[in-house]
Amino acid sequence: MRIPRLRAAAALPLFLVGAAPPQEASAPSAYETVDPFIGTGGEGHSFPGAVAPFGMVQLSPDTDATCEIRTCYGHAAGYRHDDPTIQGFSHTHFSGAGHSDLGDVLVMPQLTAGAKLEPGDPRVPNSGYRSRFSHAQEEAHPGYYAVTLADTGIRAELTAGTRVGVHRYGFPAGQAASLVLDLRTSLYNYPGKILWSSLRLLPDGTLVGMRETRGWAPARKLWFAMRFSETIKAHSFLNREEKVAYRGFQGPFRGRSDAAEVQGRALVAQLDFGALARPLEVKVALSGVDQAGALANLAAEPGGFDAIRAATRSAWEKSLGAVDLTAEAPMRKTVYTALYHSLLAPSVYGDADGRWRGPDDQVHRAEGFTFHSTFSLWDTFRAEHPLLTLVQPATRNADFVNSLIASRQVSPDGILPIWQFHGRETWTMIGYHAVPVIADAYLKGIKGFDANAALDAMVASADYGPYGGLDEYKKRGFVPIDKEPEAASKTVEYAYDDWTIARMARALGRTDIALRFEKRSANWRNTFDRRTGFVRARKADGSFRTPFDPTAINYGSDYTEGNAWQYSWFVPQDQGGLIRLLGGDRAAVKKLDAMFDYDNSRLDYSHAEDIAGLIGQYIHGNEPSHHVAYLYSYAGAPWRTQERLAQIMASQYKPTPDGLSGNDDLGQMSAWAVFTALGFYPVTPGSGQYVIGRPFVEAATLNLPNGRRFRIVADGLTPANRYIGQVALNGRPLARGYITHDEILAGGELRFTMAANPDRRWATGRNNRPYSMTGY
Amino acid sequence: MRIPRLRAAAALPLFLVGAAPPQEASAPSAYETVDPFIGTGGEGHSFPGAVAPFGMVQLSPDTDATCEIRTCYGHAAGYRHDDPTIQGFSHTHFSGAGHSDLGDVLVMPQLTAGAKLEPGDPRVPNSGYRSRFSHAQEEAHPGYYAVTLADTGIRAELTAGTRVGVHRYGFPAGQAASLVLDLRTSLYNYPGKILWSSLRLLPDGTLVGMRETRGWAPARKLWFAMRFSETIKAHSFLNREEKVAYRGFQGPFRGRSDAAEVQGRALVAQLDFGALARPLEVKVALSGVDQAGALANLAAEPGGFDAIRAATRSAWEKSLGAVDLTAEAPMRKTVYTALYHSLLAPSVYGDADGRWRGPDDQVHRAEGFTFHSTFSLWDTFRAEHPLLTLVQPATRNADFVNSLIASRQVSPDGILPIWQFHGRETWTMIGYHAVPVIADAYLKGIKGFDANAALDAMVASADYGPYGGLDEYKKRGFVPIDKEPEAASKTVEYAYDDWTIARMARALGRTDIALRFEKRSANWRNTFDRRTGFVRARKADGSFRTPFDPTAINYGSDYTEGNAWQYSWFVPQDQGGLIRLLGGDRAAVKKLDAMFDYDNSRLDYSHAEDIAGLIGQYIHGNEPSHHVAYLYSYAGAPWRTQERLAQIMASQYKPTPDGLSGNDDLGQMSAWAVFTALGFYPVTPGSGQYVIGRPFVEAATLNLPNGRRFRIVADGLTPANRYIGQVALNGRPLARGYITHDEILAGGELRFTMAANPDRRWATGRNNRPYSMTGY
Repeated sequence: MRIPRLRAAAALPLFLVGAAPPQEASAPSAYETVDPFIGTGGEGHSFPGAVAPFGMVQLSPDTDATCEIRTCYGHAAGYRHDDPTIQGFSHTHFSGAGHSDLGDVLVMPQLTAGAKLEPGDPRVPNSGYRSRFSHAQEEAHPGYYAVTLADTGIRAELTAGTRVGVHRYGFPAGQAASLVLDLRTSLYNYPGKILWSSLRLLPDGTLVGMRETRGWAPARKLWFAMRFSETIKAHSFLNREEKVAYRGFQGPFRGRSDAAEVQGRALVAQLDFGALARPLEVKVALSGVDQAGALANLAAEPGGFDAIRAATRSAWEKSLGAVDLTAEAPMRKTVYTALYHSLLAPSVYGDADGRWRGPDDQVHRAEGFTFHSTFSLWDTFRAEHPLLTLVQPATRNADFVNSLIASRQVSPDGILPIWQFHGRETWTMIGYHAVPVIADAYLKGIKGFDANAALDAMVASADYGPYGGLDEYKKRGFVPIDKEPEAASKTVEYAYDDWTIARMARALGRTDIALRFEKRSANWRNTFDRRTGFVRARKADGSFRTPFDPTAINYGSDYTEGNAWQYSWFVPQDQGGLIRLLGGDRAAVKKLDAMFDYDNSRLDYSHAEDIAGLIGQYIHGNEPSHHVAYLYSYAGAPWRTQERLAQIMASQYKPTPDGLSGNDDLGQMSAWAVFTALGFYPVTPGSGQYVIGRPFVEAATLNLPNGRRFRIVADGLTPANRYIGQVALNGRPLARGYITHDEILAGGELRFTMAANPDRRWATGRNNRPYSMTGY
Repeated sequence: MRIPRLRAAAALPLFLVGAAPPQEASAPSAYETVDPFIGTGGEGHSFPGAVAPFGMVQLSPDTDATCEIRTCYGHAAGYRHDDPTIQGFSHTHFSGAGHSDLGDVLVMPQLTAGAKLEPGDPRVPNSGYRSRFSHAQEEAHPGYYAVTLADTGIRAELTAGTRVGVHRYGFPAGQAASLVLDLRTSLYNYPGKILWSSLRLLPDGTLVGMRETRGWAPARKLWFAMRFSETIKAHSFLNREEKVAYRGFQGPFRGRSDAAEVQGRALVAQLDFGALARPLEVKVALSGVDQAGALANLAAEPGGFDAIRAATRSAWEKSLGAVDLTAEAPMRKTVYTALYHSLLAPSVYGDADGRWRGPDDQVHRAEGFTFHSTFSLWDTFRAEHPLLTLVQPATRNADFVNSLIASRQVSPDGILPIWQFHGRETWTMIGYHAVPVIADAYLKGIKGFDANAALDAMVASADYGPYGGLDEYKKRGFVPIDKEPEAASKTVEYAYDDWTIARMARALGRTDIALRFEKRSANWRNTFDRRTGFVRARKADGSFRTPFDPTAINYGSDYTEGNAWQYSWFVPQDQGGLIRLLGGDRAAVKKLDAMFDYDNSRLDYSHAEDIAGLIGQYIHGNEPSHHVAYLYSYAGAPWRTQERLAQIMASQYKPTPDGLSGNDDLGQMSAWAVFTALGFYPVTPGSGQYVIGRPFVEAATLNLPNGRRFRIVADGLTPANRYIGQVALNGRPLARGYITHDEILAGGELRFTMAANPDRRWATGRNNRPYSMTGY
């Protein structure tokens, strides 16, 4: 069922176009509310540094790039809130990734007196260029970070534009100023990672360079151009390689460190500026294309620190302005910070002139769109991308789709990205989840890309035999575990992705594709074991693999970063069918309760890094569980969803550095919080449906990309009133347990009346349940 | 004195426009006469494979790329004539370099049955993919090479266009055909050389790939595109890295070798074609820019093996047709092969679309010229570049100059190339000898480049303080040995280069530059020791460094690849001044004789690789001696020059594989032979003067780039008639010991009448000696 989209805002009653938000005089602005430190403790893997919305540059402090104090996993974003020192400020960071890379082009200010070129031991003060710091002298806002470096007294400030980062360093009066630039450091910096690097001082004082690394992505190349507000009085370029197979002939400087250029695999530079009357500004542009690209990107965003900071603040105010929130201060901070974290990736990766380096390591030019990369698709297809369809312009969403299609066109394998960053494929996680991202965008009416080319790319990706057992999947209707690891997870995720292909093919009138993929979308049944009631891995002979332990979590097991408890619920396209297979509503609710209430006291998952945020066998710190609390509503028990959401929100999100129970995963953990706080969640991207949970904010206005407003109000919201009493859409009672994307886009009001006791009848009728939407 | 250039060919008497060469019915054509095997034995370091004139691709067999049998020095061109096996056929080779690199993209045909992926030990038959071969089954002509691989019976043929190489492999009937493609091999292939490489099979069956190496040039990148005449039935891509610091996540093939792509540092591929009814053709294009460049270069030269071979044969016939030779067969073969070797470098390096990768590792576009690289300038400024001004079109010579200027514009140091290949600077050897190349071209009237920009680049290069002690040289008038190694050689070479700057500045009317560099050109005097009569290294305090041994040759000594004997003669701009300093003609002749007649029996130069071809302390196998035999003529004893030239030609050049007494050095050794055989030599490039030696051919016609002909005739040439009796230019007796470039360009005839006894009066008067030309 689809509600016709309303055409003319002028014809709407006032509450349909959305009332202006009430005065919230006492509340700080959204910009001021965001706390970039949330997620920088625990295993959230957020970074506190400066970044513009979807910016290519993430300029942020690294407390340890050497994994000396803790694991490299724990330093995936460079900064850990409980580390005692800052090693330096580098220009690229993932927001909440479960794996580490980046940390490119590390800069650290020093006093020339006593300057060091090695980072030193964080446990030994003054053993290197790193410095101790105190959170009391630290400040962070969207696009701005500042800290006082305790060992030197230098005040360090960072800001960032789309393709530039700007440092501002205030040195103690009378002290000669120095910078160290370390191209040896990287996040997870094992031996051999740096394939090549170079530094070159241009006659006009601009410092350019590049680095090629063999990391999470192979042979990743990054250029930079760095301009200084003061004249470099002396420079020292060093290559600290100890084992050099071949230095070749020596340049004009024959090992002197004042050469105009240095190349090698272990470069470090010292730049001396003398005593300065003003703070030193260092403006840095990045490019994945070439040196000219970096220089052009630098020129494309003119202005000094204050100008870039102001422009980025405006950009953040605009971006965060997509949602006006009225809520208690802790929840307001949690949700605005979550919205902030959801607006970082996929990030711009193409140059200002449109050129970008793709999965083939070759340079291409984007025509009519801006190339974005850092697609953590296994995570973000769930809620992050659906959220961006509501809070970002269609052009940005079309950029994502065009970037995916363009990447596929030059992919050595001819398929859409799996887990791509900086244009390079990493083959991380499973599925072909670019497919639901594209289908969801298309089915929501987002224009600006070639839908048929997109569908062709989706089909090619789903049909690419060598990938993840697809040859076997196509032949057998499931991925056999004796041919391919993590077969149970792959089978259910492929089947869902297939369903989104079918949906888009139907909409495009390409019936042959629709029929084929509708059939494939039922393949989840082939891996479901009726006897145990779990999704399980089957062998090529059709038998389920034994022994079977639904609580076992191991890499390369039957499942991907999870076990049978989490994966048995992954049928977004047919949760109704799953409930029937489980034995009906009562059995399904019982199983959900068994999952949440599971006694883990005898289990140890410490070997599995991503397994965090456990509520029984519900694991909120990783994505396969994210939709599960909403499944009570499919089984006719929406009040149980409401209870579980309160339980999750209270235990998994806090407005503190350790406030994320797991990796933010490029915004997915945060997008869950934003949706859930608003009162609904996209369990099935591609359906156009949001399942109603319960709101955690008193009021919210979505200032939609189409100019309309959709307002959510939670009357009577208190901790005690944790249930939905009544729901009204545009003034009329809403009997169903979901709303549609078109209803939101039309503008209007969704008003909840909260209650202390559950309403056990609301949205329990078959036709009012969410699964009624998916056509099964 | 300069003879005014004659304007109109129509107005000339017949002998001035040049008579048609006499019928030489019995002599094979120039093309057929060239023997590419000359220089492939001994230490000539030539390669026998297929190359077009100045071609980017040098497709040639490598007998050993692993330095297993002999030194890497000995395998600088990949092929040694006395090696027993061929490892494979690779696409890039230096012609006669003293250092090794290249050997990119090695291909070897095999039978699928028993195919191997390791090269194996050349001493153990069938231990790898290499094969034994016999010279009896080998054939080589310009642009064509063929051999039968004894171990497999495969007939291998190679040809090359400008940016393509084509292989043709005839497999034994009924045998399944296979190719190994080894990206691990390289000429001098030490551990760590390969920074990165990739292979990718495109859907249309084209194989593309790249390799980045840290070799003689750092971080050199080369892409290739390879197309096959038959369908690849199966392929296997392997990465044989043993210590992989980080493999990252696995691609769709998870280690299967049939992936569409492989990346890493030790790639090898096997391609299987099944049994073939026809020979297999493999067409390969290179690009220093990117993959698209390689594909476009492949498309830019259409046609199969026979078409490319025919086109390149035509190109060679045209290029070799610059000189028509009448001579005894051995001399004719020596000289035509020398001419062939002089037409290989500097070679095309820009792509067909004009793009090229420069010393800054960035991609640029050539506007109005074709970018060339492989500038072995310390060698080639002497005779190779002057020869090319006579035998190649002005456009080619302008390409060289434009390539030098363009390289300087993007050079990290802002100076002209020193020893550049594949666009990258190697900092090999000394001096700034791009300067005389440009000055010589300009002063010879070659157009097509910005002369003032060229002069600016020349001055910038000569003034670049950090390079080779130039700061000290500018301050003191000599390079002090306690500040900079090889100071004596540097001082005299800088002074000569400076003189060419002054010459060009005068011609351009830039008097300030002319005056400054005329002064600098006298700096050779500052390093000349009157007491010993040698050029010697001085210390900063002005004293000559002791101990002093004029026969000592060591790397990093007072001299560069030589000693006081060779370097004391390097004053091309003022040989008359040198002779006066030496004490006059008699003393100079005595010293020259002492050099040639030196008893080396107690000396051992085996530690100095480039020191070869010794006649006393005259070392023809290396460049500093090359002009020395002509210096007798400056001292009023031209008949002694004539004697020495006969001695050198007889002992240093043979039409056999070991026929070069030293590295050909990108054509310099060969250009010496061409000039000397014709009867004159450019002792002082930039002077427009050729010093007359004596001819070694009965007749020669230079078919000049301007359409005119200049004919050399040696009447009565026999081994006994080793002296010049009479010399006539255009029918009139020539009293001077030199001719000018303008006289040659005007067309005409230089007729020698050879004699058994020396003429001790000819060209001995002050005004008839060569040095009278240089203005000193």
